[in-house]
Amino acid sequence: MALVPLGDRILVKRSDNDEQTTSGGIIIPDTAKEKPQEGEVVAVGSGRLLDSGDRQPVDVGVGDLILFAKYGGTEVTYDNTEYLILREDDILAKVN
Amino acid sequence: MALVPLGDRILVKRSDNDEQTTSGGIIIPDTAKEKPQEGEVVAVGSGRLLDSGDRQPVDVGVGDLILFAKYGGTEVTYDNTEYLILREDDILAKVN
Amino acid sequence: MALVPLGDRILVKRSDNDEQTTSGGIIIPDTAKEKPQEGEVVAVGSGRLLDSGDRQPVDVGVGDLILFAKYGGTEVTYDNTEYLILREDDILAKVN
Amino acid sequence: MALVPLGDRILVKRSDNDEQTTSGGIIIPDTAKEKPQEGEVVAVGSGRLLDSGDRQPVDVGVGDLILFAKYGGTEVTYDNTEYLILREDDILAKVN
Amino acid sequence: MALVPLGDRILVKRSDNDEQTTSGGIIIPDTAKEKPQEGEVVAVGSGRLLDSGDRQPVDVGVGDLILFAKYGGTEVTYDNTEYLILREDDILAKVN
Amino acid sequence: MALVPLGDRILVKRSDNDEQTTSGGIIIPDTAKEKPQEGEVVAVGSGRLLDSGDRQPVDVGVGDLILFAKYGGTEVTYDNTEYLILREDDILAKVN
Amino acid sequence: MALVPLGDRILVKRSDNDEQTTSGGIIIPDTAKEKPQEGEVVAVGSGRLLDSGDRQPVDVGVGDLILFAKYGGTEVTYDNTEYLILREDDILAKVN
Repeated sequence: MALVPLGDRILVKRSDNDEQTTSGGIIIPDTAKEKPQEGEVVAVGSGRLLDSGDRQPVDVGVGDLILFAKYGGTEVTYDNTEYLILREDDILAKVN
Repeated sequence: MALVPLGDRILVKRSDNDEQTTSGGIIIPDTAKEKPQEGEVVAVGSGRLLDSGDRQPVDVGVGDLILFAKYGGTEVTYDNTEYLILREDDILAKVN
Repeated sequence: MALVPLGDRILVKRSDNDEQTTSGGIIIPDTAKEKPQEGEVVAVGSGRLLDSGDRQPVDVGVGDLILFAKYGGTEVTYDNTEYLILREDDILAKVN
Repeated sequence: MALVPLGDRILVKRSDNDEQTTSGGIIIPDTAKEKPQEGEVVAVGSGRLLDSGDRQPVDVGVGDLILFAKYGGTEVTYDNTEYLILREDDILAKVN
Repeated sequence: MALVPLGDRILVKRSDNDEQTTSGGIIIPDTAKEKPQEGEVVAVGSGRLLDSGDRQPVDVGVGDLILFAKYGGTEVTYDNTEYLILREDDILAKVN
Repeated sequence: MALVPLGDRILVKRSDNDEQTTSGGIIIPDTAKEKPQEGEVVAVGSGRLLDSGDRQPVDVGVGDLILFAKYGGTEVTYDNTEYLILREDDILAKVN
Repeated sequence: MALVPLGDRILVKRSDNDEQTTSGGIIIPDTAKEKPQEGEVVAVGSGRLLDSGDRQPVDVGVGDLILFAKYGGTEVTYDNTEYLILREDDILAKVN
């Protein structure tokens, strides 16, 4: 993947949310005020910069299935595929 | 549980609030401006990231009964069960 | 007490504020814009989390009579008794 | 004094501001947008909590005459005397 | 390049966004609320100042192709060429 | 001077701004949106409190002529003289 | 120069912006939302105060030609010459 997120950001390919149940078995309730979204991690940045100048690696890896807040991130299309660039802090959970 | 909360978040299954007294013996006063909610901890994240890069473990464990502010968190349904993903700071108290 | 506040929170049982003078001898002036409240500490949390990861114990103990800002905290009823869950920073003073 | 302020707070008994010149010789100009107030320190808290967990003693002592911003603090009456509970940062100056 | 950005800033020459696909192969979807922009890094500052007083080098270098949030930065023209001065934190990703 | 500013505050006696040129040779342009003011330092506090608990001495001394932002500070009159209590951060420059 | 900026501030003499191209060869596009300004550094402060109490020297020196955000700073006239007092963080770039 040529798109390398910067710092504490990650690149995510959204799961297809039309079916009620997502690939990770999560039902996204239409009623829920803020429907969390599901997607797969495609690339991760070098991690968050700490006061000391060290980088704190991102807590998820490429291939992880994750749940994230609906309204975070920036959309981008690359090689005709839609991705989302998120901050690590937008991630709610990993779906093992 | 396949849903693993990230960082300082926890996964909670809400107690059923219809009856006046919850399983932990707490009466949720309808009148109270901001009715606190009760629920059981189902999963916890790796904890809050400190300036040093260490993780501070979450102060509650799986199976704990907790009280939390009503409007915090994000709702999600997994395997037909409704959960809430909260930040540790949304937790008011443990109900021993 | 089964309700254990989390972190830098404390559990308080409010003094009865109807009489002009509270048990600690404090007159709560109706006129005062923000009438401070009086109550007894029933339980305390593990304390505030410092950058180092240590916990800073709360500066009041169970049984202390305290004065606190009127609008802080969350109300909860437990075993038919009304309590307030406050942050340590909401406490104005101890009444010795 | 039974009222012990908490943390970086202090307890102050206001000087009587009716006369133009206060006991410390300060004329409080009516015209000034935000008339600073004068008062005597009656009790001080344990001081501000530093990141290290140490307490930084308050920079004024009992009996000091101080100048403070008009709109800071919370009013309380104790043993029929009116006091003000202030944060150390509300204090403008000491009047030696 | 005579323009040397200060601190954690970088100087960027925008890719020409008219064609649907940018030189880095990125399609900028018109529909996307906040179309990310693409450009080439022309100069970088000495990096972000850490609490310790050290400088944290910027995470991109001269010649890198980057994606950045649309509304960040300040426009400037130098030697008849249009540039943008951005903060490092405005950069979303590198396009390898 | 009996008025001792607290912490990072300083006590200033304003230069008389009626004449176009102040004693330090500075012309205060009426047109300027925010006319900076000139005055002499009369007293300084113990300095700003650092995380470590040390005090950082104020960067100006008694007798210095300074320029400061117009709207900072609190006015007070002492021994029939008008003063201004400022924070160190309100000071723009020293006039040597 | 008798005007010594305080802390992380600098004193700047604005380049004359009427001509399209400034002395440093920069064209200030009228259309640009926020036209950056150009000027020469006349004096610098002792630098930014770090948590440790050390001073971080300012990243530009006397005589440097700089670009800065239009709306930062405070105007002052000294010895019939107009200057601007800026914070270091308002500086976008140096023009070598």
